[in-house]
Amino acid sequence: MTERPPHGSARPGGRTARTRAAVLAAAYEELDRESFATLTLDRLAQRSGVHVSTIRRRWRTVDGVIVDLLAERSAALPTPDTGDFRRDLEELARAIGDFNNALRNRNVIQGLLVAAAHDPRVEEIVRDAFVRRTEEVTQIVSRAIERGEVPEDTDAREVIAAMAAPIYYRVLILRGFVDERLAYTAVETAYRAARAGVFVRKA
Amino acid sequence: MTERPPHGSARPGGRTARTRAAVLAAAYEELDRESFATLTLDRLAQRSGVHVSTIRRRWRTVDGVIVDLLAERSAALPTPDTGDFRRDLEELARAIGDFNNALRNRNVIQGLLVAAAHDPRVEEIVRDAFVRRTEEVTQIVSRAIERGEVPEDTDAREVIAAMAAPIYYRVLILRGFVDERLAYTAVETAYRAARAGVFVRKA
Repeated sequence: MTERPPHGSARPGGRTARTRAAVLAAAYEELDRESFATLTLDRLAQRSGVHVSTIRRRWRTVDGVIVDLLAERSAALPTPDTGDFRRDLEELARAIGDFNNALRNRNVIQGLLVAAAHDPRVEEIVRDAFVRRTEEVTQIVSRAIERGEVPEDTDAREVIAAMAAPIYYRVLILRGFVDERLAYTAVETAYRAARAGVFVRKA
Repeated sequence: MTERPPHGSARPGGRTARTRAAVLAAAYEELDRESFATLTLDRLAQRSGVHVSTIRRRWRTVDGVIVDLLAERSAALPTPDTGDFRRDLEELARAIGDFNNALRNRNVIQGLLVAAAHDPRVEEIVRDAFVRRTEEVTQIVSRAIERGEVPEDTDAREVIAAMAAPIYYRVLILRGFVDERLAYTAVETAYRAARAGVFVRKA
């Protein structure tokens, strides 16, 4: 079986792109009212005005739509650049917190983990999406290294993961919301460890 | 609708308890070979020798069996007490890491998150199980406070969550395994922050 091109990659701005935008917008709206469990292709068709057979042909399942939605939404988060390492981490923590406090985003993440548990290909897509997103914001750490705020050879991905992990733990395991206190402890914990050289790569 | 007593609570050591043990053991064995997605009540019946209608009557769904399995398995983790705060955290990190590196335990956790996404009652059970488990190991922090290793008024649950979070982030989000390096950075990060008073409750 040959791989098809990524969803919506053909004719950017054309009908394919418009169809993708309509279906993803519909999914995002539905997830603001309903959980992932109740989402169906028929519902997406109804809300988006795109025929269900078109949706099925392109994404195959609800899982496929959710995976595509993650790609679209996570591209929307900016990388802070305030000139100060702690402040960059604070802004990033706030952005991740706000994202995860919105019901529909929680439902996207939940849906992704369900999809990943059902399908190793989705598992890989989820992993790649988070790795790519982490990679983007590692600039926060590279800039801190340049400014001499953290030691050289600090593993930037480890720093970002250390800061983000408590937020995902709260959301996915404790099923709670991200508050000021959690953002504070997550930033402070990662910041201090990074400054102290905990994330310096061993020779 | 009145609540039934917890699964297997009737006649401890009797037929009910034996049936529960057989079904949970069968589920745990299946999850060592197959993912949660392929587990069915029929398979559990076949492996356990318990009639499928009995399983369905008691647990209703595969989700129900998995939730019960979590309760049984997570009760098996001991709380370290070495007399040293850092060493206690290291042992706890190793125990959580080992648990999450075993395929069948990964499958239990995955299955739970799938079940929680489908059913708010399961969501509550998952949350309660983790909160209860965290509560148990907070003794590590209380003892560190008594020994003067961390400040009084340190929020013990926050410390445990800070240490455990990077492990679950690795397993659930990055879909990877827990290695020595991750255990080291997770412990070191939480340990230093706790010593520095990051988790002290504000007045």
